[in-house]
Amino acid sequence: MKVVIVGGVAGGASAAARILRLDEYAQIIMIERSGYVSYANCGLPYYVGGVIKEQEELTLQTPESFWDRFRIDVRVRQEVTAINPAEKTVTVRTLDSGKIYTETYDKLLLAPGAKPTVPALSGVSSERVFTLRTVEDTLRIKHFVEDQKPKTAVLAGGGFIGLEMAENLVEMGVSVTIVQRPKQLLAPLDTDMASFVHVEMRRHGVALRLGETVTGFRQDGDSVLTLLEESEPLRSDMVLLAIGVTPDTHLAKEAGLELGIRGSIAVNERMETSVPDIYAVGDAVEVTHFVTGQKALILLAGPANKQGRIAADNICGGNSHFTGSQGSSVLKLFGLTAASTGINEKAAQAAGIAYDKVVLFPASHAAYYPGARSMAMKVLYEKESLRLLGAQIVGGEGVDKRIDVLATAIRAKMKALELTELDLSYAPPYSSAKDPVNMAGFMIEDLESGKVRQFHWNDVEDLPCDGSATLLDVRTEGEYRRGHLNGFRNIPLDDLREHLDELERDKPIYVNCQTGLRSYLACRLLTQYGFSCAHLSGGYSFYQVVTQEQQTARSAYPCGMEKL
Amino acid sequence: MKVVIVGGVAGGASAAARILRLDEYAQIIMIERSGYVSYANCGLPYYVGGVIKEQEELTLQTPESFWDRFRIDVRVRQEVTAINPAEKTVTVRTLDSGKIYTETYDKLLLAPGAKPTVPALSGVSSERVFTLRTVEDTLRIKHFVEDQKPKTAVLAGGGFIGLEMAENLVEMGVSVTIVQRPKQLLAPLDTDMASFVHVEMRRHGVALRLGETVTGFRQDGDSVLTLLEESEPLRSDMVLLAIGVTPDTHLAKEAGLELGIRGSIAVNERMETSVPDIYAVGDAVEVTHFVTGQKALILLAGPANKQGRIAADNICGGNSHFTGSQGSSVLKLFGLTAASTGINEKAAQAAGIAYDKVVLFPASHAAYYPGARSMAMKVLYEKESLRLLGAQIVGGEGVDKRIDVLATAIRAKMKALELTELDLSYAPPYSSAKDPVNMAGFMIEDLESGKVRQFHWNDVEDLPCDGSATLLDVRTEGEYRRGHLNGFRNIPLDDLREHLDELERDKPIYVNCQTGLRSYLACRLLTQYGFSCAHLSGGYSFYQVVTQEQQTARSAYPCGMEKL
Repeated sequence: MKVVIVGGVAGGASAAARILRLDEYAQIIMIERSGYVSYANCGLPYYVGGVIKEQEELTLQTPESFWDRFRIDVRVRQEVTAINPAEKTVTVRTLDSGKIYTETYDKLLLAPGAKPTVPALSGVSSERVFTLRTVEDTLRIKHFVEDQKPKTAVLAGGGFIGLEMAENLVEMGVSVTIVQRPKQLLAPLDTDMASFVHVEMRRHGVALRLGETVTGFRQDGDSVLTLLEESEPLRSDMVLLAIGVTPDTHLAKEAGLELGIRGSIAVNERMETSVPDIYAVGDAVEVTHFVTGQKALILLAGPANKQGRIAADNICGGNSHFTGSQGSSVLKLFGLTAASTGINEKAAQAAGIAYDKVVLFPASHAAYYPGARSMAMKVLYEKESLRLLGAQIVGGEGVDKRIDVLATAIRAKMKALELTELDLSYAPPYSSAKDPVNMAGFMIEDLESGKVRQFHWNDVEDLPCDGSATLLDVRTEGEYRRGHLNGFRNIPLDDLREHLDELERDKPIYVNCQTGLRSYLACRLLTQYGFSCAHLSGGYSFYQVVTQEQQTARSAYPCGMEKL
Repeated sequence: MKVVIVGGVAGGASAAARILRLDEYAQIIMIERSGYVSYANCGLPYYVGGVIKEQEELTLQTPESFWDRFRIDVRVRQEVTAINPAEKTVTVRTLDSGKIYTETYDKLLLAPGAKPTVPALSGVSSERVFTLRTVEDTLRIKHFVEDQKPKTAVLAGGGFIGLEMAENLVEMGVSVTIVQRPKQLLAPLDTDMASFVHVEMRRHGVALRLGETVTGFRQDGDSVLTLLEESEPLRSDMVLLAIGVTPDTHLAKEAGLELGIRGSIAVNERMETSVPDIYAVGDAVEVTHFVTGQKALILLAGPANKQGRIAADNICGGNSHFTGSQGSSVLKLFGLTAASTGINEKAAQAAGIAYDKVVLFPASHAAYYPGARSMAMKVLYEKESLRLLGAQIVGGEGVDKRIDVLATAIRAKMKALELTELDLSYAPPYSSAKDPVNMAGFMIEDLESGKVRQFHWNDVEDLPCDGSATLLDVRTEGEYRRGHLNGFRNIPLDDLREHLDELERDKPIYVNCQTGLRSYLACRLLTQYGFSCAHLSGGYSFYQVVTQEQQTARSAYPCGMEKL
C-alpha cells in the first residue's frame, strides 16, 4: 500500500507514524510545503519570546528521524499542486528547484491545516507586517525582533496566537496594542468571563482597542501605521496579523472534494472525504460539535492528532471513528489561565438551546493552605434535560484541572446534578473537600430544586428603582462603604434576622453580596420568612469587573444614574 | 424540628449549615468533644510545620460564627455519652464541669469521625508518644516541637497523616524514621507505584523501616525507645503514632445501632442508620465502594462533606442519596504528588475482578515547554467489560489533574477505550496534544485489539534464560551500556530492520526499552515481520525503581544471577 500524506504537522505526522505501526510494509510519502515537519506549532510564540530557547526544541521530528525510525519518506519544501482522483495521482512541485513531478497513491491523506487569514487590505504585504503559521514565520519574526529591537507592536486579532504573542512580546519589553473588531478578546469565552482576561492584559501594560476595525497598513519610514476605521492610525515598529485562520483547502476544492462550512473539507466519522481513498484530518476539516451536534470548525491540536490516528486506522483497514470535538481549550496569559470546554452562552443562543448557568468564585485549593487563589467559573447546562453544555474558567492554578474534569463530564453526557457526586481527590494543597466542580453542581441543584433564584449582572440596570422592590446588600458595613450598587441598602447577613421587620413583605427582594455566597444564604433565609427573593449571580465583584471592562451603559448603577 | 448533631467537624458541620439553609426554623445543637468545630483537619500537619502560620486559619468557623450566621447552638468540650433512641434523647457530659444533662432530639446526626488507632502496647502513653486527630493534639505537638526542639522522630505508620507529618518535621530539620509493618508506604498505591514515594522520602533523608513491627515504647530520659519485633530499638526525641484510624462508634454500638465492617456504623444511601431518626455520616460510617460494589471504609474529607449535605437534605424531608465512594485521594510529599482513584491491583485481586493494566510515563506538559516532568501512571480496567477500575499516578505538576479526570471517567462508568476520545484542553504549559489520559486509552486500545502484548516487571525473573527465547533491549548503545537486564542483547530500535535476520524466527522475543514506548514500536515492527513479541510494561526504568526499592529477590536479573 502506498500512502501519500499532504502536510506533515499535527494530523499528518500523527497519521504517518500510526500507519507504519499498523503496516510496516506501507510505503509512506509525506509532503510538506514548509521546511519542517512535526513541529511544535503551539510552541511558536514561546520561541519568539525566548521561553523556548533552542530552535531544535520546536521540531519534534526531522525528515531524517522519520526515516530512521519509521521509514517514512518525508519531502519538505515540496507542494502538492493538484490531486487527480481518477488516476489516483498527485502533482508535486519542488519549491527550491521548481521541478514538477507526479506521485501515485493508493490512499491519500490531506492534512493541509489552516492558514492565517490575510484580508485584502492595503499595505498588508509590508515587511513589518507579520503572520505566524510555520517555523519559517517564527524565525522571521524572531530575527526581526532581535535585529530591529522593536519598541512597539500592534497585534491585529485577539485569539490564541495573538494573545500568546502579546505576552511574549511584553516579556521582551515591547509595548503592545491589540486591535480587534469584536469587543472582547478570546471568542471561546463569553464577554463577562473575557473581562478577567482584559484586566490581566491591561495590568501588564497591553493596550486594548476593542471594537475597532483595521482598514489597512502603511509603511512609514521605520514604522508601520495601522489604519483604523474610526480612529487615528496607530504607529508601531511591527504588526502581527492574527485575525483568524482559514482552512487551507484550495487543493481539495479544485479536486472536486465535497466542502463543508467556511471552505473546510467535509469528512465522515472515519475521516473519509467524498472521494474514495482520500482522507482528510486536522484544521482543514469540518467536524461535528459534540455538544450541539452541528457542523463546526474547531481548529485545535488535540482533535487534529486524534483524527490523524483515526484516519491511519481506517487507511490500514480498521474501523475507527471520530465522534466529534467539544472545543476544549486553555491559554496561559501572564499569571492567568483561561480555559473553556463545550459551548458558551453565545453559542447556546445561536444553537437555540434553552440553558441556565451558575457563576462562582471557588478557591483553587483549601483557603488555609498558602497560595490559594480564587477562580471565576461559569457552568452552562440545558434547561429541562439538565445535561451539561459547557464551562469557562479564568484564574490561576487549578483552572486547567477543573476544565478537564468538566470536559470529561460533558463527554460522558453527565447531567449537571451529577457534578455533586464526583469523587475528586482532595488534600489542602490541591483542592477543597468540596471541589469547585462539586460546588457548581450544588449550586445548580439548589437552582433547579427552586431553593434559590438568581439574577445576573446584565439584569442590574433593569432592576426597579421606583420603590416597588427592595434592593439589599448583605455584605459587611466596610465592604458596603468601599463601593456598592446605587439604590441598594445595607443589612449585613449576620444581622439580617434582627432586621426582618424593616423589610416590606409584599415587595420582591433583590440581594447582592461580594461573590454570591452570602446573598444565596440571605435568600434562603428570606424565602423561609416568606419573602420573594433573588440574588445576584457572581455578586458585586463580578458585576464590577464585567461592567467596568465593558465600558458601556451597563456600568450605570440601577438607580439614581442616567442610562447612556 | 430539633436536631442534635454529634461531632462538629467535616460531616457534622456541613450538615448543620445545610439544615439551616433548608429549615430556618430548625433548632440545631451541635455537640463537639474537642474545643474546636469545623476545623481544617487535613491542614493539621501543615500547622505543625509552620506552612500554615496562624492557628486561626485552622478553624474555619467558631461557635460564635456558627451562631451569628446560622443560629446553630454549638457546644464544644461536651461529650455525648449515651443515646436513648426509645425516648429520643442523648446524655451529654460537660468536660470542664463534669455536669451531665439530657437533651431531646427529633432527629439525631452522628458524625463522630474516627480516632487514631492506639494499640495496647507498653509505653504508648508516654508523653513523648503523640497521636494527631484534633486541634488540641496539633497544639500539643507544635508546642513540644517548639519547646523541646526534637532532633529525631519516629513515625509509626506510613499513611497520609504519617507522611505529611514526616514532610513537615523534615522541613523543620528533624531527622525522621518511618516504621511500619507493610512493606510499602501509602496503601492506596500498589507496591510498584509506592516505590516512587519511597525514593522521594529517602531523597529527603527520611529513613524507611518497612516490614518492621513496633512492639512497644519505652521512655528513656529525654528520649523514647521504639521497640521493634526483630531489630534493635530506635531511639528518638519523639514518636508519632499514625498506624491508622478506627471509626469512633462506641456510642452507636451501645445504643444498639446496626454496625458495619470494622466497627463502623451501617447506613443506607440516605445516610439513615438502622434506628429511625438517627443518621450518621463521615469517617464513622460504612459506604458502598463505587467500583467494587462492596462495603468499605473510606475515611476521606470529600465523602464526609458530601454525606453531611445528603443527611441534611433527608433530615429536612428531602430525598438525597449517597451513591458510594471511590476513594479518590491525593497527597503532597516534598516535590512529589501521589494520587489514586478507584481500586488498585491488590483490591482488584481481593475482589476477584479480572483486570489488566497499562503503565506509562507521560510528560506533565509539552516537552518543549520549560518545566515538563514525567509522571508514573498506572490505569486498571476490567477484562471483557473494559470498564475502568482505577488509576494511580505519582509525579509532579499535573498529577492531581489526571487523577481527577480519571476519577470522573470512572464515575461516569466509562469504558477504558473512551479515554481515547476525551477532549481535554491543551496548550504547551498545561498538557500535550495527546493528554496522558488519552495516551493511557491508546495503549489499552492497542492491548485489547491484540496489536501488542506486554509483560511486567515482576515477570522478568521468570523469563527463559536457556536460549529458548530472544531477550532484546532496543535502547541506544549508550543507554544499554549504562545498565541493562542480564541476558538481554542490544539492537537499537532505529537499527532493528537491518538486523532482523539475526533474530531466530521460531523463538518468542521479549523486548525492553527505557519506559515502554520504543519497545512497543519494536514489537509492532517485529510482529509484522512474523515474530512473536511481548514488551516490558513501563520499561527498564520502572523495573529498576521497583526492584531496587523492593530490595528483594526480584532485583535479580533474569539470566546469569542466582535467585535468592
